[in-house]
Amino acid sequence: MAKDERIYVGVDLGGTKILAVAFDSKLKVLATEKAKTPREANASSVVAALAEAVRRVIEAAGPGLALGGVGVSVPGPLDRAKGIVRYTPNMGFKDYKLGQELAGMFGAPAYLENDVQAGVYGELRAGALRGKLNAVGVFVGTGIGGGIVIDGKLYRGATGSAGEVGHMILHEGGAACGCGNYGCLEALASRTAMAKDAIGQAATGKAPALYSIAGSDLRKCRSSVLFDSIESGDKGVKKAVDRAAAWLGVGLANLVHVLNPEAIVVGGGVVTRFGQKFLDRAISSMEDHLMPGLAGTAQVLLSELGDLAVPTGAACVAIEGAEASPAKGATR
Amino acid sequence: MAKDERIYVGVDLGGTKILAVAFDSKLKVLATEKAKTPREANASSVVAALAEAVRRVIEAAGPGLALGGVGVSVPGPLDRAKGIVRYTPNMGFKDYKLGQELAGMFGAPAYLENDVQAGVYGELRAGALRGKLNAVGVFVGTGIGGGIVIDGKLYRGATGSAGEVGHMILHEGGAACGCGNYGCLEALASRTAMAKDAIGQAATGKAPALYSIAGSDLRKCRSSVLFDSIESGDKGVKKAVDRAAAWLGVGLANLVHVLNPEAIVVGGGVVTRFGQKFLDRAISSMEDHLMPGLAGTAQVLLSELGDLAVPTGAACVAIEGAEASPAKGATR
Repeated sequence: MAKDERIYVGVDLGGTKILAVAFDSKLKVLATEKAKTPREANASSVVAALAEAVRRVIEAAGPGLALGGVGVSVPGPLDRAKGIVRYTPNMGFKDYKLGQELAGMFGAPAYLENDVQAGVYGELRAGALRGKLNAVGVFVGTGIGGGIVIDGKLYRGATGSAGEVGHMILHEGGAACGCGNYGCLEALASRTAMAKDAIGQAATGKAPALYSIAGSDLRKCRSSVLFDSIESGDKGVKKAVDRAAAWLGVGLANLVHVLNPEAIVVGGGVVTRFGQKFLDRAISSMEDHLMPGLAGTAQVLLSELGDLAVPTGAACVAIEGAEASPAKGATR
Repeated sequence: MAKDERIYVGVDLGGTKILAVAFDSKLKVLATEKAKTPREANASSVVAALAEAVRRVIEAAGPGLALGGVGVSVPGPLDRAKGIVRYTPNMGFKDYKLGQELAGMFGAPAYLENDVQAGVYGELRAGALRGKLNAVGVFVGTGIGGGIVIDGKLYRGATGSAGEVGHMILHEGGAACGCGNYGCLEALASRTAMAKDAIGQAATGKAPALYSIAGSDLRKCRSSVLFDSIESGDKGVKKAVDRAAAWLGVGLANLVHVLNPEAIVVGGGVVTRFGQKFLDRAISSMEDHLMPGLAGTAQVLLSELGDLAVPTGAACVAIEGAEASPAKGATR
């Protein structure tokens, strides 16, 4: 690494874990650090753990390197320009000036980004969407989030909320969604949806392996638990996961009809665990639901970056911030 | 009008009628001409009728004015760059070099545009979406089409098909759609959907006025016939139209979740006939189906230009073509 080059840290600040990654300005990974998010749901303890992870990853990247900037992704509404976390359900942030505090701690500019948007941005800059102009990212986990790329840039919409693809209604009157509606993509194809369905199957004896591990505790039905139950022969769990993949395909078809993207990247814990076979099922359902003229127009790709997508996107925001106003850059 | 200023003709070439409008370069309407589209489904007779309408509207605009360009909207797939109509279901076009033929006839550049895209563009440049950066247009007629505005420009997608909002699936497994799927917005909220539903109501005696006018002939259930039947007390027709408005609202909610637009314009024959009351029903359903953070973010507006939206958009394409390459402009 050139002597005068700076490093950039991208952090995925999640409700259960913190992943901090140090990159050079070409997005080469120099070091990664993981930590658990404190359980107290108290902003100051979360910030302390976050700062500690950033400090450690900078140290691990190598001695004496200048920090160009920090980008942090947060699961909740933000004011990006002011660096304020408006609210998070689990970490105790409320109109919290996280950007300013981090910039003060590290003597370098700090930027915030929404977690899903950061993930899509990471895939765009360094993953499956590299070089794409018009694309969509869909991330399947506890919920389903998304992001839209238009003309090679993240499209944020009028109030910064574009890409809430999990709340497209595909089956009005169907499964209840956390948002209060019925039949949203998220209520049909998220890990939560799969787990609810699988627990229902367990109740009628069609998922004994799942029942022995998770009982009827939704939180214990992690992607790996669902996967292992299928491997153990749980036909009910297989049905639940296949059904979710088919619904995901309906959601992808809706996105193709509206946006006609050249590519869609699909990621998130479930997809990472179940892999290409799961995605193929979704693609087949998508193709079944496209009008003739749109068949074959959109590539559907697995996430390339996996867990690194979000920190990569967060670091990109920091790198671009530094490029836009280099005077703001400060060394430690 | 200044002596050296040119006029531009925008034409809505539809399956049943041709509407040609002459504009000055500021989009002021100078003259309009209507004609019936020949029934023979024969490209050369359609082109003859189209050319005659253009000739007449140029004449009506005033003697001795120079023609800057012609824009024609066509209901079917196009190659815009080459001015080729790929295919139309009713007018007999198949890989037809309409742009070149019109340019030869009139000694001025000629441009083609998709009809729905032209309508959205007309509203953007001179109607309800004027000044909007991120917006959507939804046109309800026999089918439902749409267009997307991003950063003040029409967004066309990877293969020129963005905005097929009528084929978003809102109720998988629901009403059959012409595209082969079930539960598309178009199958639930188009005039065709209303008419099918209303004829079903007539079959059980709940739409006697409609039955006396249209029997069970879908084509006779025009917007005005549906409207008059409700005025005559047909409760079954009112139910069918209200139901369609509610489904339209679900479709609008999906678009808000995906695109977070600042405004949506809704137009087309049905909406023009039923007006703000119909739209209010759709808006109320939309608001019911939005997640909390998106409530109130998108204005939903009635089309301002009505029948003039499409010719206005087509003329805009011609005006912009002339601005981009003024050397191509030719006088008659």
